[in-house]
Amino acid sequence: MNTTHWIAIDWGTTNFRAFLIDGAGAVTARTAESLGLLQVKDRDFAGTLARLLQPWLASNPQLPVLMAGMVGSRNGWLEVPYMSTPCALSALARHVVTVPWQARALIIPGITGMSLGGQPDVMRGEEVQLLGLTQLQTRPHCTAILPGTHSKHAQLVGDTLQSFATFMTGELFSLLSKHSILGRGLPPQTDDESAFVSGVLAARKDPELSRLLFSVRTRLLAGLLPAPAVHSYLSGLLLGAELAGLPADTHAWVIGAPALCERYQLAAQHLGMQLEFADGDDCFIAGMRHLHSLLEPVTGSCS
Amino acid sequence: MNTTHWIAIDWGTTNFRAFLIDGAGAVTARTAESLGLLQVKDRDFAGTLARLLQPWLASNPQLPVLMAGMVGSRNGWLEVPYMSTPCALSALARHVVTVPWQARALIIPGITGMSLGGQPDVMRGEEVQLLGLTQLQTRPHCTAILPGTHSKHAQLVGDTLQSFATFMTGELFSLLSKHSILGRGLPPQTDDESAFVSGVLAARKDPELSRLLFSVRTRLLAGLLPAPAVHSYLSGLLLGAELAGLPADTHAWVIGAPALCERYQLAAQHLGMQLEFADGDDCFIAGMRHLHSLLEPVTGSCS
Repeated sequence: MNTTHWIAIDWGTTNFRAFLIDGAGAVTARTAESLGLLQVKDRDFAGTLARLLQPWLASNPQLPVLMAGMVGSRNGWLEVPYMSTPCALSALARHVVTVPWQARALIIPGITGMSLGGQPDVMRGEEVQLLGLTQLQTRPHCTAILPGTHSKHAQLVGDTLQSFATFMTGELFSLLSKHSILGRGLPPQTDDESAFVSGVLAARKDPELSRLLFSVRTRLLAGLLPAPAVHSYLSGLLLGAELAGLPADTHAWVIGAPALCERYQLAAQHLGMQLEFADGDDCFIAGMRHLHSLLEPVTGSCS
Repeated sequence: MNTTHWIAIDWGTTNFRAFLIDGAGAVTARTAESLGLLQVKDRDFAGTLARLLQPWLASNPQLPVLMAGMVGSRNGWLEVPYMSTPCALSALARHVVTVPWQARALIIPGITGMSLGGQPDVMRGEEVQLLGLTQLQTRPHCTAILPGTHSKHAQLVGDTLQSFATFMTGELFSLLSKHSILGRGLPPQTDDESAFVSGVLAARKDPELSRLLFSVRTRLLAGLLPAPAVHSYLSGLLLGAELAGLPADTHAWVIGAPALCERYQLAAQHLGMQLEFADGDDCFIAGMRHLHSLLEPVTGSCS
């Protein structure tokens, strides 16, 4: 391992992921832990990071790290000010903030913007994947969807993020299936494509989510929805509701883990839309690599 | 207490309410316990009912009871088949079902219907309040809103329930404030009318609830929403989203407890709609009284 190695990190609220990258930009090792910010005791981010990276640091304690995600939020290591839309994503490199650690440790800012409805919105972490997408793919204008707990819809022009909005799709699924009447007393759930598609189509017909959701209960009571397929139908409703607001001829990217992106692609197909898959890790790594290439080198003699 | 007294009961999933009614139809006593169906041990509904009504039964163990609500559902005392829309509400009296008890004990059926979006829907309990409304007020056509955990919107023509739909407004508020990121780490909440109205107006601007909800988080982060007003804003969003789908010139009834109905009236006013208040207990009692008057008397000699 030579001194040009560095580490790209996505540190979120519930997960930690790190990629060891060599001087040529290739990933030579990766690690993931369910040790998100909420699990860091006494705000000891420096100590936690050193422990998490111990296997790689053993031979080189001076490996620099470049971090993105909620680690730069108010509840993270250090609150890094947001950049604002429209935002040239390469410019993130000029606004990284250093945190005290055993080696160089930088946090990339998140981005804030105003939605069309006049509401503020925020992202931390997705901006790196979006930059990565622009590095891996060329398309002058595009929409990109980043599914997850808080799914993001982003509008890109070149490498500039014009605007974005957040949908609570993943969190609503988790809340409703765990804590609501819709999820109570269910048998073990199976992946039921037909129930999922019914949910997507129901969401297209009824734009009022709070009414639409009750159909999970009533379809079950009426014998129209098999009990082991409730989660699939609910997932279809929520993904359908998220996508149904997009223009009917939408052709967009969906960035994330393959299994979740496939669900989005299936939903989109039944709404007459097309979603093209871009792997979330590949985009993250490409984005971090590009930002790393733009960083000012640390010099020993000048300040 | 003479033998013409009887008891009207609303037994739901989480609450039990009973009204002692004299031969002239006047309420002479009332009781309420947070002893819903979910709290009944070993499905001993008969024993639980006798215990709950003990003070009134002591002098007359033969007091008849007329029950409405989830007590007639699959998880209740006995599953009473639904009637279907369009449903003349007076006809409910002809479809009551007897359960074995120490005195005459009848359960009123719920109603099922098909929403405009083609989804089945169900109610148990609200049908009595709707019938009561038609007894207390005369208006040939009307819309009635019954707010609650699962808020109902009903279309009445005379005393016929034409159609209805359910919105999960109350349950979503509870889930989101207790279990989601939107409710995490908040200080004690105060009733903030300005935040509530902001929520109502935001819901009118953005029809996508799952995106709209994230504004609770982002407005708080951006300093646009005071932390003690988060619940008020969230409540405004959910009530606004529920009402925003109604025609702009809606003039409807809102049936329920005064405080909750006032919130609906305030929201409606800011959406250019008008909601007229009808007390939920008054409607329930009027509906039960009318159904009771239509019941076949029990005779001793003929079967």
